Amino acid sequence: MQIILASNNQHKKEELGKILYPHTILLPQDMGISFSCEETGKTYIENAIQKAQTLYKQIEKPVLSDDSGLSVEALDGRPGIHSARFGEQETGKKLNQKEKNRLLLELMGDKKERKAAFVCCMVLFINPLRIYAVQETLEGYIATEERGTNGFGYDPIFYLPQYDKHLAELSPEEKNKISHRGKAAKRISKLLEDI
Amino acid sequence: MQIILASNNQHKKEELGKILYPHTILLPQDMGISFSCEETGKTYIENAIQKAQTLYKQIEKPVLSDDSGLSVEALDGRPGIHSARFGEQETGKKLNQKEKNRLLLELMGDKKERKAAFVCCMVLFINPLRIYAVQETLEGYIATEERGTNGFGYDPIFYLPQYDKHLAELSPEEKNKISHRGKAAKRISKLLEDI
Repeated sequence: MQIILASNNQHKKEELGKILYPHTILLPQDMGISFSCEETGKTYIENAIQKAQTLYKQIEKPVLSDDSGLSVEALDGRPGIHSARFGEQETGKKLNQKEKNRLLLELMGDKKERKAAFVCCMVLFINPLRIYAVQETLEGYIATEERGTNGFGYDPIFYLPQYDKHLAELSPEEKNKISHRGKAAKRISKLLEDI
Repeated sequence: MQIILASNNQHKKEELGKILYPHTILLPQDMGISFSCEETGKTYIENAIQKAQTLYKQIEKPVLSDDSGLSVEALDGRPGIHSARFGEQETGKKLNQKEKNRLLLELMGDKKERKAAFVCCMVLFINPLRIYAVQETLEGYIATEERGTNGFGYDPIFYLPQYDKHLAELSPEEKNKISHRGKAAKRISKLLEDI
């Protein structure tokens, strides 16, 4: 099946293409379509469905979308769905990832309770009536310092006790096996086998 | 696993209990909990998640919920998520199912385009970060008269060309194999096997 990803991210296309093979993943731009979508939902699922719906209206073909973030218990779930834009409100400017990581470490200070989870909601939108959503997590702890150079986003400050490593210290293969996005993609892959 | 169904419907508990065996399905009342939930969502998924969330807040254990309805193309998707309350606005009173079926036939008149789909969204809510939603359909046509005494709801006026029968003329076993709710429950069952 040909599935269009509601995203402009070439990296996501490649990563998902591998997991969802033999299905073909295309970006809107591969079809000459310009895609953009406001994210006004209050949850990962709402945002992922919003992206899928927006693209489906343009192409009327099966669409895949995702929304992800980092949810920190001691911060009442923040940055959560605002992970990509984290710090903009607090500082009045757009932060780069290093600045976001430092802001998060600062907010956590020396809190004892450091539980956190990466969350990924992936939506397979076959048509407006036939929809699948899977939301998976990777549980761990906010570390007290950055470590590791693999991965991206908040990976350097995310500690995994079962490895005694930060997520950014895992290889891409190790990370894909346990990650929120890897698990969600594998479930979507199973769904695609069935339908 | 013990899963609590966000519903007060004994019939649903039994039907799902069979499909999801060996998992045990309980109703809130089986645990001495009173459950009620407003449905303010604009989609099946929103309503199903709302039900699951409401119950999860009370019990903090894995919850199953569903929302379903009949979507008629020529009526712009109505009665849709309002299928259970259909006709209340139009007539100012609560209709029984026979009255709802007649109102729908009346609205359809002699329209040529009679495509419709039963829709069921089922949500498995493991915790607020780990959520699965599957939305399945049963496609058919709005008939011009009622036929059959099996099933419930709009089944007597729903025509299935592949059987040349109305849905209410199928046996419960035949219906479960092809129905929106049967298909959604089977997917949830597969998910439960994996997790």
